[in-house]
Amino acid sequence: MAPPDGAEFPDEFELIAELFAPLAAGAPGALALEDDAALYVAPSGHQTVLTVDAMVEGVHFLPDDPAESVARKLLRVNLSDLAAKGATAKGYLLVTAWRDGTSLEWMRAFAAGLAADQQIFGVVLWGGDTVRTPGPATFSLTAIGEVHEGQMLRRGGASAGDGLYVTGTLGDAALGLMALRGGLEGLGEAHRDYLAGRYRLPEPRLATGARLCGLASAALDISDGLMADLGHLCAISSVGARIALDRLPLSEAGLAALALDKGLIETIAGGGDDYEILFAVPSDREADIALVAAETLTPIVRIGTVLAATEGINLVDDAGQPVALKHLGYRHF
Amino acid sequence: MAPPDGAEFPDEFELIAELFAPLAAGAPGALALEDDAALYVAPSGHQTVLTVDAMVEGVHFLPDDPAESVARKLLRVNLSDLAAKGATAKGYLLVTAWRDGTSLEWMRAFAAGLAADQQIFGVVLWGGDTVRTPGPATFSLTAIGEVHEGQMLRRGGASAGDGLYVTGTLGDAALGLMALRGGLEGLGEAHRDYLAGRYRLPEPRLATGARLCGLASAALDISDGLMADLGHLCAISSVGARIALDRLPLSEAGLAALALDKGLIETIAGGGDDYEILFAVPSDREADIALVAAETLTPIVRIGTVLAATEGINLVDDAGQPVALKHLGYRHF
Repeated sequence: MAPPDGAEFPDEFELIAELFAPLAAGAPGALALEDDAALYVAPSGHQTVLTVDAMVEGVHFLPDDPAESVARKLLRVNLSDLAAKGATAKGYLLVTAWRDGTSLEWMRAFAAGLAADQQIFGVVLWGGDTVRTPGPATFSLTAIGEVHEGQMLRRGGASAGDGLYVTGTLGDAALGLMALRGGLEGLGEAHRDYLAGRYRLPEPRLATGARLCGLASAALDISDGLMADLGHLCAISSVGARIALDRLPLSEAGLAALALDKGLIETIAGGGDDYEILFAVPSDREADIALVAAETLTPIVRIGTVLAATEGINLVDDAGQPVALKHLGYRHF
Repeated sequence: MAPPDGAEFPDEFELIAELFAPLAAGAPGALALEDDAALYVAPSGHQTVLTVDAMVEGVHFLPDDPAESVARKLLRVNLSDLAAKGATAKGYLLVTAWRDGTSLEWMRAFAAGLAADQQIFGVVLWGGDTVRTPGPATFSLTAIGEVHEGQMLRRGGASAGDGLYVTGTLGDAALGLMALRGGLEGLGEAHRDYLAGRYRLPEPRLATGARLCGLASAALDISDGLMADLGHLCAISSVGARIALDRLPLSEAGLAALALDKGLIETIAGGGDDYEILFAVPSDREADIALVAAETLTPIVRIGTVLAATEGINLVDDAGQPVALKHLGYRHF
């Protein structure tokens, strides 16, 4: 890799020492990143939850996304998976495949993004691997969390009659991606910036997820879009669902976008990258949800009802009439 | 991604169901890959060891390497990290970033390679992520193992006077890569095939590593080349070392290559991808090593001695005279 300024570029071990070792400080099990392995044991009465997600430049993030937000999004999408399990986040392993020619400045900003989010979410780097690639930058992150034994939230478990809820607001990230690609031209700059920020920096709902243990009958985080992920939850739980389109929680910017173009409801319900939690709650526990929302300072809205599998998945409008959406989620292949 | 035969290409979820779900059978914590997370707890008295390594097409494997061996190498280089920690391998998380246009046949062969090695090494797929990339195929794998509490082998811990040992033979993989790239022309086909096989399919020394717990003072697996990894062990242990070049264990094919060109000793000592264990043993425990070799059916050879840090790292020839090598390991950046 040609150093951009003619100076000698740090080798793998110098990069690890400069960029990553500081992120491992305070985690005894990271072994100061000297051992190419991390050592860990869950506290008594707990189980370990492991999850991994990858991001490829040009596929999962934009080539001109800032390095800080790429790193933070990578961490956050994995923390969102832990949140949807009701797990407490503890540490992570990081694989960075840097595109040839990546500047040291970009790498430093990437590490700075991780450092900022480590403070916010109380996680520490435990280990990883750093390589170079002639292709697009590719990152993957394995997040490790803990749940009380037997308390992990699952995708299967929803029953007909359960209420269906989501945290936060939907569609912001998908609209933000449109804005970053030059779409949504009629929308004001403040709204465009807000939506772009939601695309770049999801908010993992860790506190809310932890409070849902023992309360939600099924949960997942919305990464492929509401309709696609609802489909997963229903398939694995062997249930159907009815969703009231007018109940979908929208941000002010999302409402403004929808006012410009009613067709954007497709993007809101079908786009991805929300990283909000979709969950089901048995009807006799629904009264507790307002308390969870208040305690975790997180908006939670009921968007529908779990039905029998034979009912399928139905979208209805204000008047209870069926609505058809064309695109039911992001297709990876 | 354009399906090669005009048929509809499976989407992400169909691929997971066909290729990966069978690899997760028998692991309750994999949750049938339905939950985008794995659930795990180490048995009482044990600690969990986590390690991750990535492989990029054109950097860590050749574009025409068979899919089976790419997958198996990916698993094995990570199992080798566990072996060097003395850990027992349990499960793994897999990230596959398939190059656009990868055929379903190639993906199936990749999964078949993993299935074959799962049988050999007793590990099971616990989870992962599968995405596409417009760049070179990129894979990463997080391996999870277990050690008895406090028994994990470390890189730091070697002391002056300890013996230095390696498992297996050195240099085969680096020579094999030369052969695959059209080098080593004078070498017979059987030898070339043997070396290529060692490049493509390393042998993780799990049984030997486990037996070294409580016996070796320091250990690591040789991935960057003997001299580079010896350098790491010495730096982290704050020691020096003397290595007898004529003691390096060579395969028959390695000996034949060296007979053709004495200069290949640089490749043997400096090349990478050996995935043999380099370890140090206090002099009062050296008698046990022959027993470990016999019990684990693994050749183990003493190649040198740990010295004080002030002595540096010395290579000596048959007559005990210093030898200089030009390249002391693979430089990643």
